[in-house]
Amino acid sequence: MKGYIHVYTGNGKGKTTAAIGLAIRAAGAGFKVFIAQFLKSGEYSEHKSLLRFSDLIKLKQYGRGCFIYGNPDEQDIKFAKKGLNELKDIISSGKYDLVILDEANIAVYYKLFTVEELIDVINMRPKNVEIVITGRKAHPKLIELADIVTEMKEIKHYYRKGVSARLGIEK
Amino acid sequence: MKGYIHVYTGNGKGKTTAAIGLAIRAAGAGFKVFIAQFLKSGEYSEHKSLLRFSDLIKLKQYGRGCFIYGNPDEQDIKFAKKGLNELKDIISSGKYDLVILDEANIAVYYKLFTVEELIDVINMRPKNVEIVITGRKAHPKLIELADIVTEMKEIKHYYRKGVSARLGIEK
Repeated sequence: MKGYIHVYTGNGKGKTTAAIGLAIRAAGAGFKVFIAQFLKSGEYSEHKSLLRFSDLIKLKQYGRGCFIYGNPDEQDIKFAKKGLNELKDIISSGKYDLVILDEANIAVYYKLFTVEELIDVINMRPKNVEIVITGRKAHPKLIELADIVTEMKEIKHYYRKGVSARLGIEK
Repeated sequence: MKGYIHVYTGNGKGKTTAAIGLAIRAAGAGFKVFIAQFLKSGEYSEHKSLLRFSDLIKLKQYGRGCFIYGNPDEQDIKFAKKGLNELKDIISSGKYDLVILDEANIAVYYKLFTVEELIDVINMRPKNVEIVITGRKAHPKLIELADIVTEMKEIKHYYRKGVSARLGIEK
């Protein structure tokens, strides 16, 4: 089966959530999944659920836990580059049928690595490996490369009414 | 915790997938989840994965398996109305923290039941119950009612290149 490149982008809710859903669907078909989370650190509720799939889904974080607003520092860049470096082996080995690069768009947007560096790593995949990239502000070069691109567009959001991220729903 | 109403709509990929992801996140927080699938019938890959959550997530289908293109018949209407009727108890009991009505937008669009009937059922929830409605062509009255609405907008899709739904990725 040929592997395709998916991009979930846009300001709306559901990008990481859809990637988690896709990991679950793929695991249901017996596929092996690797989820790399850039920028993020710490346990989200979905991580507890994913423990039930330790035979099929592996998740690793390459961030410091706080989303960056402003300029990233050396530490943020170091973490992200380490992640991208590890992904070379993870993707090229063909050990995983589906590799999710959660928030990689944001990592590019904040210049933790370049879009060219990201594309080089994606292009290391054996042809059957499926790739999913999430995060707002997807780079035009990545959109060009991708086979399927969905913009999660915010039509209405309760954050604007002052509702914070809630356990089990957003985190 | 106050429960909110989410709508995932639009032509792009990721609506049901995001709802499944949300179910998994909610289960990770120990929440009980009911997934009602309208129009659909038969096993998708995610169903196999959800068996690992039989303590927390229950899924039931109220469809005939073939998506309707054209006019629904009596049988389609009967299945959908039965589902909506069962959901009255499921939602009003408060037994589930999160209730997902997958493809309910399409059920309304094809007049299997009315948007008013759907809203009446949603409004039966105890205030802590979270509701998720998915499907293309969300009715304006439902968008008005919802707290959070995301349009999955198709930017690029490989179906247009002739790629069919694939096991573990789309089904």
